[in-house]
Amino acid sequence: MGEFELIRRYFDHAAAGAGVIEGIGDDCAVLQVPAGQELAVSIDTLVEGIHFLSEIPPAELAWRLIGAAVSDLAAAAAQPAWLTLALTLPKADPEWLEPFARALAECCEQQGIALVGGDTTRGDRLVLSAQVHGWVEAGQALLRKGAQPGDRVLVSGTLGDSRAGLESLLHPVSAPTQEIRWLQQRFYRPEPRITLARALRPHVHAGLDISDGLLADLSHMLDASGVGADIETCCLPLSGALAHCYPDQALNWALSGGEDFELCLAVPEAAVTTCLQLAEQQGVRLTGIGRITDVPGLRVNDAEGRELAGLAQGYDHFKESP
Amino acid sequence: MGEFELIRRYFDHAAAGAGVIEGIGDDCAVLQVPAGQELAVSIDTLVEGIHFLSEIPPAELAWRLIGAAVSDLAAAAAQPAWLTLALTLPKADPEWLEPFARALAECCEQQGIALVGGDTTRGDRLVLSAQVHGWVEAGQALLRKGAQPGDRVLVSGTLGDSRAGLESLLHPVSAPTQEIRWLQQRFYRPEPRITLARALRPHVHAGLDISDGLLADLSHMLDASGVGADIETCCLPLSGALAHCYPDQALNWALSGGEDFELCLAVPEAAVTTCLQLAEQQGVRLTGIGRITDVPGLRVNDAEGRELAGLAQGYDHFKESP
Repeated sequence: MGEFELIRRYFDHAAAGAGVIEGIGDDCAVLQVPAGQELAVSIDTLVEGIHFLSEIPPAELAWRLIGAAVSDLAAAAAQPAWLTLALTLPKADPEWLEPFARALAECCEQQGIALVGGDTTRGDRLVLSAQVHGWVEAGQALLRKGAQPGDRVLVSGTLGDSRAGLESLLHPVSAPTQEIRWLQQRFYRPEPRITLARALRPHVHAGLDISDGLLADLSHMLDASGVGADIETCCLPLSGALAHCYPDQALNWALSGGEDFELCLAVPEAAVTTCLQLAEQQGVRLTGIGRITDVPGLRVNDAEGRELAGLAQGYDHFKESP
Repeated sequence: MGEFELIRRYFDHAAAGAGVIEGIGDDCAVLQVPAGQELAVSIDTLVEGIHFLSEIPPAELAWRLIGAAVSDLAAAAAQPAWLTLALTLPKADPEWLEPFARALAECCEQQGIALVGGDTTRGDRLVLSAQVHGWVEAGQALLRKGAQPGDRVLVSGTLGDSRAGLESLLHPVSAPTQEIRWLQQRFYRPEPRITLARALRPHVHAGLDISDGLLADLSHMLDASGVGADIETCCLPLSGALAHCYPDQALNWALSGGEDFELCLAVPEAAVTTCLQLAEQQGVRLTGIGRITDVPGLRVNDAEGRELAGLAQGYDHFKESP
């Protein structure tokens, strides 16, 4: 099976979508951004053996790839529109391609994003680069900069589940419980917070999605905004499954586990109630975990108000890993 | 050196550009397509050991990557605007990154394209995915479909040089002549035909860039347009360097060598003279090599008008290689 046949057979399904003038099959996709909207663009790469295990089911890989990429659009409060996919494959194996392409189509449909182009190449390791394009009202993109002293720090959902799900895959338990399976789904199928981000956008000063871990990502927001923050560990939203299955690691993973793909937002005090109400209407948990200050740096305090010192190392260690 | 440091040090130079509201450093780049313009998007991947030799100088790799990607914008007659780059690296080696990033910046400036975002990941092989974004007047994107029986087939520049340049790198000659070095530059530093494509666009029915080889790419145009074509080998534009250094392979490489990144256009007879004049004004060779017909298929005829039969195999063979 050649490249063109492969594309035709597996990936030429989803080219229809809003603003798609020419989809897959020409040198370029030709696209129309609606009037009054800006374009938000992000590219994410997953490398076999680095970002995912070789044994990952192809359908789960598709969900993970698209979920993680679309989450960057949520971080900008943009509406998903178009996807391009660069796929480097060891071989054109229908046993792999068929479930991958089917899940990709399902996931794209669920996220409201149309596959409009890509490139398929051969390589000895599986490498996937997903570039997502979304629309956001002019001047309304949610950015990392803009957090102000006094803002509350809010996070959506629960933190650390994805890292726990990965742990249970790396060190399988003999009889996975429903809780373990739920944690694995949190790892495999991140749910980008598009609807929440777009509803909260008018009330929020700054925001991003948590991909590298709360401490790393919140630090990015603080750096971009030129502020600091105090975080209270007692407020971190933990799922029952995480707390129950991995009680000893739960806090650490919530702080720096990464790949939660939840939102972290800086919200002025006066807008916090509105944000909490909007989240509740969507059935999404939204939790205050701390406050922006004018003292540079990120401090994490325990229930007695003592600053946790050992955390900086974990954070630096992450920064060192490319 | 961590990922963030790497990006800051090497790739945070070129975010300024037309329509760039937010460049590198946030979850998404935020971009503004000018009113009345459509967005043309293409993604290209280069894999170490498949698309380039491991020994390729990093600067040449940057030029090749961007030249090949921007050529897809030329194929759509779009003006280059923005680039995102997904880079998978075995290690964060300044000896490699420094010349690569410098050449990338130079090349982007020459092509008028701004690096607005990317993703840097670790992997055991070098993999680069460049996504290019351009603008084209609404409804004016040059497409593969639209060629009509009676149209002349025109190609820009000369064909086969890039393949010859590669050959001279795979099987080095002891004392490379100026001609050999010129062929290698044709391989390393493709010159996307943006200016030519945009000038010719109003006069052209269909077009694409020659990346897979003339026969393969012209066949794509014929398939998309539902037509056929007759090509005359005697008309193929060969450089003096190619004809002199590789006389026995010149014709074959011109037909199916690939990576020429020249334009192949279907032009109505009445507009051919205008197109030739426009090309001449730009100092770019433009050559008629055959004609679109209503007989399906692509026929290649020699100087005596005999159809060359063996070529189909070469073409099929290429199609089979993913």
